[in-house]
Amino acid sequence: MKKITTKTAVRKYNIYINKGILEEAPAIIKDNFTSFNKLVLITNDTINGIYGGPIKILCDSIGVKYNIISLKDGEEYKTLESVETVYSKLVNLDFHRDDIIIAFGGGVIGDTAGYIASTFHRGTRLIQIPSTIIAQVDSSIGGKVVVNYMGIKNIIGSFYQPHMIIMDPVLLESLDENQVINGLGEIVKYGIVFDWKIIKILEKIVKTKQYNLDSLVKHDEFIDIICRCAKIKVKVVEKDEFDCGCRNLLNFGHTIGHSIEKEGGLKDISHGQAVIMGMMAAIEISIIMGYLPGSERERVQELFKKLEIPYKIPKIDIEKIFEGLKYDKKFTSGMNKFILLKKINHPFIYKGVKKEVILKSINNCIDN
Amino acid sequence: MKKITTKTAVRKYNIYINKGILEEAPAIIKDNFTSFNKLVLITNDTINGIYGGPIKILCDSIGVKYNIISLKDGEEYKTLESVETVYSKLVNLDFHRDDIIIAFGGGVIGDTAGYIASTFHRGTRLIQIPSTIIAQVDSSIGGKVVVNYMGIKNIIGSFYQPHMIIMDPVLLESLDENQVINGLGEIVKYGIVFDWKIIKILEKIVKTKQYNLDSLVKHDEFIDIICRCAKIKVKVVEKDEFDCGCRNLLNFGHTIGHSIEKEGGLKDISHGQAVIMGMMAAIEISIIMGYLPGSERERVQELFKKLEIPYKIPKIDIEKIFEGLKYDKKFTSGMNKFILLKKINHPFIYKGVKKEVILKSINNCIDN
Repeated sequence: MKKITTKTAVRKYNIYINKGILEEAPAIIKDNFTSFNKLVLITNDTINGIYGGPIKILCDSIGVKYNIISLKDGEEYKTLESVETVYSKLVNLDFHRDDIIIAFGGGVIGDTAGYIASTFHRGTRLIQIPSTIIAQVDSSIGGKVVVNYMGIKNIIGSFYQPHMIIMDPVLLESLDENQVINGLGEIVKYGIVFDWKIIKILEKIVKTKQYNLDSLVKHDEFIDIICRCAKIKVKVVEKDEFDCGCRNLLNFGHTIGHSIEKEGGLKDISHGQAVIMGMMAAIEISIIMGYLPGSERERVQELFKKLEIPYKIPKIDIEKIFEGLKYDKKFTSGMNKFILLKKINHPFIYKGVKKEVILKSINNCIDN
Repeated sequence: MKKITTKTAVRKYNIYINKGILEEAPAIIKDNFTSFNKLVLITNDTINGIYGGPIKILCDSIGVKYNIISLKDGEEYKTLESVETVYSKLVNLDFHRDDIIIAFGGGVIGDTAGYIASTFHRGTRLIQIPSTIIAQVDSSIGGKVVVNYMGIKNIIGSFYQPHMIIMDPVLLESLDENQVINGLGEIVKYGIVFDWKIIKILEKIVKTKQYNLDSLVKHDEFIDIICRCAKIKVKVVEKDEFDCGCRNLLNFGHTIGHSIEKEGGLKDISHGQAVIMGMMAAIEISIIMGYLPGSERERVQELFKKLEIPYKIPKIDIEKIFEGLKYDKKFTSGMNKFILLKKINHPFIYKGVKKEVILKSINNCIDN
C-alpha cells in the first residue's frame, strides 16, 4: 500500500493507494477517525449498479448508521438542485460536522459530494473514493469542489480539502473506452509537463504483447502511474492551494482543447480527446516558436498511436477555434495565455501567442 | 484611523476603523485592489432607505461598473433563495473572481453576501462594511459566512475570510434601541471574558451627565470599545480559524441564552437580551461553583443598570430552559458544556455542570 501525505493550509490528509484497498477501507477509516456517529455515502446510479455490493459491505463494516444516496448519473446533475436534495436528507438525518460523507464515484460525484461536505455545517468530514482515472489522478486531489449553474460549468464552489482519499485501481476495470481515453489524456499531460518517467512506463506497457486499451488499467505498472500522477497533483496543490499560480501549469493542452470541445461542432468528442488534441497543438506551438525540437512531437504521436488513442484534430473551422480562446479562464485583458514547453518537463506560461502561430499549429495537427 | 491587520491561514487582511471613514473608503479600496472591473454592493431595503445616498457616492467614487442589490430586510431572507437570486445576477453581469462584492449591512447581509462571495467562482473578493454593533465587533470578523436552511439557523455555510473590513461608527447612529442592546450584550461579553478595560470605558461613559442609550454610540470613547472588541475577535480567529478550540470562549452566555431565546416563550426578546441573561446565569454558575466572588455579580449588574439595559430573566419555566440546553451546539455525548469564569477575564470550558446548579443559577437570576 502506498501512502501519500498532503499538507495544505487547512489540514494534512493521506491518500491511500493499492489494488483491492477498498476491502481495507473500513479499517483505515476507523483507525483515522473517531467521534462520528453517521455516514452518508454519495454515489450515482451507474456506479451503484456496478458496485452496489462492495459499497454495502464497506458501509456495513464501518459500523455506524449509514445512508447511501444515489444521484442520477451525468454532468447535467452536478447542480444546486442535487446539492439541496442531499442537504435536506442530511438535515433529516441530524447529520453533524464530525460525521462522514464518502464521495464514491468519478469527477461529478467527487465535485458534488465535495461541495455538499464543504458547505453543510460549514464543513463535514469528507472521504473521496474516486472510481475513474481522471478522478484518481486529478479531480479528487486538491480541494476543488464545484457544481454547475445556469449552464456554466463549475461556477459555484469552494476550496475544500478532503480528510482522506482512498484509491483502488481495481475500480478502474469497469471503465468504458471513453473514460480510459479521458484518463490517459490527463496522464500523458502529467508525463509531458512534469514527469517523463510516466511516458516511459506507458511506452513499456504498450510494448507488452497483450496490450490493448481495455486491459491497460490491469497492468501492475499502472498503479505506479496513478501514484506518480497523484504525487504531482499533490505537489502542485501544496504550492498553490488557492489556484493563483503554478496550478495553471495543469492546464497544459486545455486552452485549445476546451475551444475544440465547445466550438468545434464535433459530435461525441470527449473532454479527454479534446485535451489530447489541445496538447498536440500546444506542443506544435512550442515547436513553431523554437522551444521544442520536432522529434518530441513524433515521440508523443508514436505513444498515442500505440496506446490506440486518436490524437489528430478532425477537419474543423480553425477561425472558430481561435475565436473560442477568449472564453478561456486564463484569457485576461484581451490577451491569450498558453502553457508551453521550453523542453519536455519544463513548462512555462506564455502570454499573447500570435494569431498566425495558433492557426498554423492547429492546422498542422489536423487529420488530413 | 485605526488599522488592525488580521493574519489567517488563507490571507492577511486589514480592518480600518474611524468615524466618517466611509468617505475615504473609495480611496482605500482603490489603493488596495487592482485588476477588478466590476463591483456589486449587497445591502437590504432598510439600510438602502437610510444610506442610499452615501452608498451611491461610495460606488460612484470607486469608478468601475457597479450594481446595488438590495435584499429584503430580515433573518428570514438569509436563505439559499436569496443566494441564488444574487448568483443569477452575477452570472448575467459576467462577474469574475477578481471583482469585488461589498456587504453593506448588519449580520444578515454580511452572512449572506459573504456566503455568495465564498462560493461564486469559488471565491470572489469580499469587503465587509458592517453597519451594526454586532456586525462590527463580531460577525464581520472571522470568516463565518452562513445562511439558514429548512428553518435551521446557519446550517449551510463556509469559512471565508473577507479581503477588507471598513468600520464606520457613524453608521451605528441610526440603530434602534434593540440593536444597541444586542450590541452591548456582545461588548459586555468581551469585557467580562477577555478585557476588563472595556467595562471600565463603559462605566466611564455611563457616568457622564448626558448619558443615555440612544446617544451611547456617539461618545468618542465608543470607537475605542469597537477597536478593543474587534482586536479580541481577530486574536481568537487567528488562533482558531476553523472553530475547533478557543473560539468556543466567544459563546460565553450563549448556552443558557439560546435556550431562553428559543424555549422561554418570551415575546419580543431579542438575541442580545437573551445573551445578557445567559451571561448573568453563567456568572451565577461560576459563583455557585466557588470560582467567582459574589461581588463580581453586583458590579456587572450595576453596569447594566446604568446602561439602562434589562439583565434579569423574566418569570420562566426553568425546567424547559434546562431541557433546551441539549440543542446547544456545544452539547455532545449527552454532556452540557459551559463557558465559565475562574475569575474575571479568565474563561474556561466546563463539561457536565450539574442540573441542580443550573436550575439554581437560573432561579437566582429571575426577576422577582
